Amino acid sequence: MRDTKLVASIREAIVQSGLKDGMTISFHHHLRNGDYVLNMVMEEIAALGIKDITINATAIFDVHAPLIDHIKNHVVTKLQTDYMAASVGGVISKGIMDTPVEFRTHGGRPNDIAEGRTPIDVAFIAAPISDPMGNCSGKYGKSACGSFGYPLLDAMYAKKVVVITDELVPYPLVDWSVSEVYVDYVVCVDAIGDPNGIVSGTTRITRDPVGLVMAAQAVKVVEYSGLFKDGFSFQTGAGGATLAGAKFLKDLMLEKGVQGSFVMGGITSYLVDMLQSGCFRTLLDGQCFDLKAIESIRTDPRHQEVSIYQYAAPDACSSIVDSLDVVFAGATEIDTDFNVNVHTDSNGSIMGGSGGHSDICAGAKMSVIITPMFRNRLPMIRDHVTCVSTPGKDIDVVVTQGGIAVNPKNVELKERLMAAGLPIVDIFELKEKAERMTGKPQPVPHGDRIVAEVISRNGGIQDHIYNVL
Amino acid sequence: MRDTKLVASIREAIVQSGLKDGMTISFHHHLRNGDYVLNMVMEEIAALGIKDITINATAIFDVHAPLIDHIKNHVVTKLQTDYMAASVGGVISKGIMDTPVEFRTHGGRPNDIAEGRTPIDVAFIAAPISDPMGNCSGKYGKSACGSFGYPLLDAMYAKKVVVITDELVPYPLVDWSVSEVYVDYVVCVDAIGDPNGIVSGTTRITRDPVGLVMAAQAVKVVEYSGLFKDGFSFQTGAGGATLAGAKFLKDLMLEKGVQGSFVMGGITSYLVDMLQSGCFRTLLDGQCFDLKAIESIRTDPRHQEVSIYQYAAPDACSSIVDSLDVVFAGATEIDTDFNVNVHTDSNGSIMGGSGGHSDICAGAKMSVIITPMFRNRLPMIRDHVTCVSTPGKDIDVVVTQGGIAVNPKNVELKERLMAAGLPIVDIFELKEKAERMTGKPQPVPHGDRIVAEVISRNGGIQDHIYNVL
Repeated sequence: MRDTKLVASIREAIVQSGLKDGMTISFHHHLRNGDYVLNMVMEEIAALGIKDITINATAIFDVHAPLIDHIKNHVVTKLQTDYMAASVGGVISKGIMDTPVEFRTHGGRPNDIAEGRTPIDVAFIAAPISDPMGNCSGKYGKSACGSFGYPLLDAMYAKKVVVITDELVPYPLVDWSVSEVYVDYVVCVDAIGDPNGIVSGTTRITRDPVGLVMAAQAVKVVEYSGLFKDGFSFQTGAGGATLAGAKFLKDLMLEKGVQGSFVMGGITSYLVDMLQSGCFRTLLDGQCFDLKAIESIRTDPRHQEVSIYQYAAPDACSSIVDSLDVVFAGATEIDTDFNVNVHTDSNGSIMGGSGGHSDICAGAKMSVIITPMFRNRLPMIRDHVTCVSTPGKDIDVVVTQGGIAVNPKNVELKERLMAAGLPIVDIFELKEKAERMTGKPQPVPHGDRIVAEVISRNGGIQDHIYNVL
Repeated sequence: MRDTKLVASIREAIVQSGLKDGMTISFHHHLRNGDYVLNMVMEEIAALGIKDITINATAIFDVHAPLIDHIKNHVVTKLQTDYMAASVGGVISKGIMDTPVEFRTHGGRPNDIAEGRTPIDVAFIAAPISDPMGNCSGKYGKSACGSFGYPLLDAMYAKKVVVITDELVPYPLVDWSVSEVYVDYVVCVDAIGDPNGIVSGTTRITRDPVGLVMAAQAVKVVEYSGLFKDGFSFQTGAGGATLAGAKFLKDLMLEKGVQGSFVMGGITSYLVDMLQSGCFRTLLDGQCFDLKAIESIRTDPRHQEVSIYQYAAPDACSSIVDSLDVVFAGATEIDTDFNVNVHTDSNGSIMGGSGGHSDICAGAKMSVIITPMFRNRLPMIRDHVTCVSTPGKDIDVVVTQGGIAVNPKNVELKERLMAAGLPIVDIFELKEKAERMTGKPQPVPHGDRIVAEVISRNGGIQDHIYNVL
């Protein structure tokens, strides 16, 4: 019988966990750009003289820029992640690491952990609330982040689990997400994150007229797709245009009296509004993006937390993405084979990652990419994307301000949308239309050093990312 | 992407699961003596001509008496369980099986499954509600049983999982307990159980004056134990005298203004009353015993479902029993070394099992056995118990109508209780006192064939049960 798992400091937890050179540690990104935990842990690891660490993180944000020094000092020699923001990605793209970054999807990452392909030695869980035995949650506390979809799986499979919290409550925490059965050590610190970076107060839809036009068109695609009926299920990301799409879809559902089954995300106030107004029976939440989502998951039993494994793992008996009807997603580039890039900018520099993009597009009956024809005078529709993040076979429709392209494999869908009078154009036409306005983009040469591997959700290497020159 | 996991019949699920001679299947007992599922599955397995099956069941009830024929026909050749009611236990005790039954505890069973010592080929989950992808729960439906603490672990570790339900709802079920990620097949049948056998309408405390006296004394033991203060935690079983103890404890907590942290069970209306009247912050529920408990777990967020692994698994980083202060438990016999028997009657015939008895007594700071000095003119306090279900080292106090015995290892506790004026007696005295009233019991000879092994929660063989003559 252990009375407590409390240890005095992050350093003591690291020492007691037995962390050694060459091991793998994991982090989750529910605290997003407000996260202090990854940096605090890495600082202690560096101070302890531990080297050659692999970091397996669900996402790396701009706030994690101190990682660059740890990489240069060989404290960190390998990164596995689903997303990497530009501040770190831009430096990685210069080729500072000997070993390529491994990019996975939100479904592929927990899948590979569960299957034993990417074992975790020590998982660090940034917990907005915990009891002394490690029952913890993201729903409460000054650093509340809402759903705790990511660490659930890491906790189950990591050899050692350290919970780092800034709100310690008496045993037992009511409404825990991660259970004490998996937790070895609990550390209480002053602050695990900056609330301003963890969530936005409100998420805002785009005011950009181009974004609003695309959103309205995307909703028309849904309306005439044949999928828009009672029981309909939906996911959208948190980008401005896709959120506008959610708003317009809500209006349409209420107008037509269609009641959906579930809406899933990345959850924002717009999806909570859809739940509260009765558009959907339930909301499935792997991650909250704003305060309204956090309040909702705390108080509304129809708003359910799901582990990211249940969300999207391809080797699960089934995951929720398998039951999805429609998704709205974005792109930094798309090509005439409908391949989508969300990893790099058009210069090939890392500034993102799949997250759940590949998972939801593979699972959904219809995936709709909403992207402008050009950004900053660069066309978004290319002969070949710089990086294949999601393969074209999983993309069904591309909505731009200059027309809607349907993947040629979807013969029936294309006919439906044309019959509805939507401006359906061939993707090659769309590309040329964009290029008439921006000029044909110059090919951007890259180096011959592989800085990252993009691993498909099913486990194969899907593409390589090379160093920028 | 799979649209559904629905198969037409239990037989088809068995065939598709690949079940073959010599494999192991598992069941849970949330439907208690109303369960139809074990019998329905075994009937199909027998009809398919499959032989040499090991059944790993959380408990076997009287309703499962058809098992005896399956054993005689060699369809079933091994049983692993935590509890066996007398109708099956009595026949097993005659020595009809070549292989001894393996008895585990509610904590030891999931522990051994998780550690790979007792692998499950196919788990059958009796689900009062499910969606077509296998998200299922015990909280709703005509056969509602409340908490789904047992199958959570089986679902995670079994190679194949079959959900058998009598209430199929559209995807996704809101408020699932077992997740679709673990479920291979879903079968919808007319009825999975008889509601009258699943739960009792109300659980009743004893009216027996001896039981009431013992309950009152047990509560005095708690009051003066040094553990009765804010944050106090408690578990009790569902026997008549222990339930009366819960009722009296509630009165004392309200009178003294003590607020406990958690109460755990096997949950009855009495423990729900304690939650609702503010005696405890939360109620942790592995299994519901009555309708009020089921209504509470559906509607009160402070009433939380816990997996039986989290409840009591000894190899978990921690389980809830590790944080328990006081338990009330029963005994069919206890001996002068404080060993407790809950597996057999005094003739050595199987009529029970540890369930969580060993787990809670090992975990709690103070375990209180409430037992009369004699039943049916047989003394309950013996030189040696017929079967060691829970070792004496884990028992702290024995309360009878003829006095209270404290395990000699608890020097301080004994002093506290004596100082409080409680009738503390030596356990040998208690034994003699009982024997003065009943006569010294004749030793009951047993055969030399081992019919069951009692495996301690930590994995070693703790005792053997022999055939009755």
